[in-house]
Amino acid sequence: MSRARITAVETHDIRFPTSLQLDGSDAMNPDPDYSAAYLVLRTDEPGGPSGHGFAFTIGRGNDVQTAAITALTPYLIGKPVDTDLGDLWRELVHDSQLRWLGPEKGVMHMAIGAVINAFWDLAAKRAGLPLWQLLARMSAEEIVHLVDFRYLTDALTPSEALTILRERTRGKPAREAEILATGYPAYTTSPGWLGYDDDKLRRLCKEAVQQGFRQIKLKVGADLDDDRRRLRIARETCGPDIRIAVDANQRWDVPIAIDWIRALAPYDPWWIEEPTSPDDILGHAAIARAIAPIKVATGEHVQNRIVFKQMLQAGSLDYLQLDAARVAGVNENIAILLLAAKFGVPVCPHAGGVGLCELVQHLSMFDYVAVSGSMDDRIIEYVDHLHEHFVNPVVVRDGRYQAPTAPGFSSEMRAESLAIHRMDSARTRA
Amino acid sequence: MSRARITAVETHDIRFPTSLQLDGSDAMNPDPDYSAAYLVLRTDEPGGPSGHGFAFTIGRGNDVQTAAITALTPYLIGKPVDTDLGDLWRELVHDSQLRWLGPEKGVMHMAIGAVINAFWDLAAKRAGLPLWQLLARMSAEEIVHLVDFRYLTDALTPSEALTILRERTRGKPAREAEILATGYPAYTTSPGWLGYDDDKLRRLCKEAVQQGFRQIKLKVGADLDDDRRRLRIARETCGPDIRIAVDANQRWDVPIAIDWIRALAPYDPWWIEEPTSPDDILGHAAIARAIAPIKVATGEHVQNRIVFKQMLQAGSLDYLQLDAARVAGVNENIAILLLAAKFGVPVCPHAGGVGLCELVQHLSMFDYVAVSGSMDDRIIEYVDHLHEHFVNPVVVRDGRYQAPTAPGFSSEMRAESLAIHRMDSARTRA
Repeated sequence: MSRARITAVETHDIRFPTSLQLDGSDAMNPDPDYSAAYLVLRTDEPGGPSGHGFAFTIGRGNDVQTAAITALTPYLIGKPVDTDLGDLWRELVHDSQLRWLGPEKGVMHMAIGAVINAFWDLAAKRAGLPLWQLLARMSAEEIVHLVDFRYLTDALTPSEALTILRERTRGKPAREAEILATGYPAYTTSPGWLGYDDDKLRRLCKEAVQQGFRQIKLKVGADLDDDRRRLRIARETCGPDIRIAVDANQRWDVPIAIDWIRALAPYDPWWIEEPTSPDDILGHAAIARAIAPIKVATGEHVQNRIVFKQMLQAGSLDYLQLDAARVAGVNENIAILLLAAKFGVPVCPHAGGVGLCELVQHLSMFDYVAVSGSMDDRIIEYVDHLHEHFVNPVVVRDGRYQAPTAPGFSSEMRAESLAIHRMDSARTRA
Repeated sequence: MSRARITAVETHDIRFPTSLQLDGSDAMNPDPDYSAAYLVLRTDEPGGPSGHGFAFTIGRGNDVQTAAITALTPYLIGKPVDTDLGDLWRELVHDSQLRWLGPEKGVMHMAIGAVINAFWDLAAKRAGLPLWQLLARMSAEEIVHLVDFRYLTDALTPSEALTILRERTRGKPAREAEILATGYPAYTTSPGWLGYDDDKLRRLCKEAVQQGFRQIKLKVGADLDDDRRRLRIARETCGPDIRIAVDANQRWDVPIAIDWIRALAPYDPWWIEEPTSPDDILGHAAIARAIAPIKVATGEHVQNRIVFKQMLQAGSLDYLQLDAARVAGVNENIAILLLAAKFGVPVCPHAGGVGLCELVQHLSMFDYVAVSGSMDDRIIEYVDHLHEHFVNPVVVRDGRYQAPTAPGFSSEMRAESLAIHRMDSARTRA
């Protein structure tokens, strides 16, 4: 174990005024100001890197999220730079007093996720590898150690997880090479924000197809007539061969969801995303049964692996949309990838926001090399804003994420961006 | 509408060193320091009361919980003292930016609960009534307006809720008089903390029976041999006619829960409480099917009405243990009472902690007068510590909660207690 230690935890309340352009506008979020509760792990390793992580929020409350990360500082100072991240996850998530604030959900769980992800950024930088490669090269036993199976064993045991991972050992180098050569498929949500007018929708649909995307996504759920018109425009513009997903952002109750989606069926939507509350496992299952063969996708607001477990058990979803910064970081997402592999459900991560594209590409690429071994029917969301604030922004070309090669988790923001968009600076500018 | 307004929101980080005596120790919480993130609504009403509310935590993180309440201040300043609490609930819970931090769960949801409860304390004081009477005297329409039915209508519609409430209109005055005369049954958890030795357990069991309690509760889940021995001691001491509930505080996975509870069956446990994760709706249902006729009780960590809805739909629980300070306050608990009434499941509130007994008595008494109309198989938890810090502490006599008669929600702490147990003061004393 290294003698170098974590010496400081810096936190930053970072906000971007995205509501000015209605980027990110949907049926539940009319005017988000995309924000990050951001942290930096400083160490005393001579010439060594720092670790960067964040929770994504959409504005108000980012101060509370930042305070929750700050509250974890006493657990982190003095930890070795190569601390065991399976043990650290258990220490933070199962802290007997902190868990009362969830357990395993909401502000405190996202704070732990930000911290865990910062440690993974540090670990990958110290290993000189992008995170997806660091994870993909671990042994099955090392990966299983990272996962906490508490509350999962009725659906997935450690030995079943080992079996899944060992079955994927063969062909790993070839899949790693394939990722490096050709990347991973993406779809784009950029055309479909609810606040855009029809001309902008039409123009952005056309551009998306020209850029090589084979799937786009539209926000729906505020007004049925508008949704019909917008989906018709998108279908006419994209043609019959492009998959068009729609996303209701939790707008509906179960009976309304079923009626609304059936009304959109003539325009051949590929999946309906977040038709109702992310907490409604049984509701999603009822919707999925009622609207087949249209698919159900959900997950960006699913609080933890325990809810995903049940959604898989109940048949609540056809596509699992993990989020890199909602659950408790990389470790919990590995548990979720393993659960999805066990149930044979494709993982299509949620992205967008601030830096979520940067993070989830690593998880999907790791999934392909080491867990599911498949890209069939799998695709990562892509939204084309705010990447300029990252030191190693995603590269999407011809509708595919190109494999990141810089060491780390691609989570580090540029120092100028941090300085300009800190809450205090934002206030000064207002 | 009154012209008087909310002029200030005071917040206090209040901590009690309960870990010193192992009060509150259980299989998941070995050394809690019972705490409250506390707020006071000040108004400009001449001679008018203030409104008091709080979120309960068990120590570390109470600062984050307090910060979350503070973050709500801008929504509250300037609100009329008689603001519409149905509208206020919707404004806070559905705030498009804040809801990203949940939605409807964890730190931010509990903060909203504390605020909503403080407004109810203010409303009841201004009405000159204890909260349970204020609520019980409302019309069915007024009560339905307080409830947000979003995500509930596949199980309970507003018109079904109206029907339930109207059916209870007859006999209300008689039930109100009955509550005033004889109170509401209680059970005690005081004998059963895991940190107590066998002699203390035996002594406290004997005292509980002598005090008139017909049900006690023991913590279990750390060690099966210990649990067998402690349950045997309790059963021998209490005799066969006292109900003995056991509480695992989320300790087990589903398969372990089933085996463990079956091993305790010879000692005739009445219910098993929180056998596994509060998020595991399907897991609780599997346990309930496997261990019948032993009952399942859960709810103190259930994050919101949407999860309770599903637990009722899936048959996950036989007793619903709402918590006054976990969900978003009185309004959401009215939704939960209505759901329980629809499904015919008795509500037996969680209490203890800091001030939870003070709060939940109002909810159960309101339930009896206006919602379920029944005390059959219903009972409120009672734990005998920290009541001395409240201006109007609960009165439990002959195993029954006596009806509170002071105006308000019984949520106001004594000024000396606030001053002594503020985090800053606690630090000074350490």
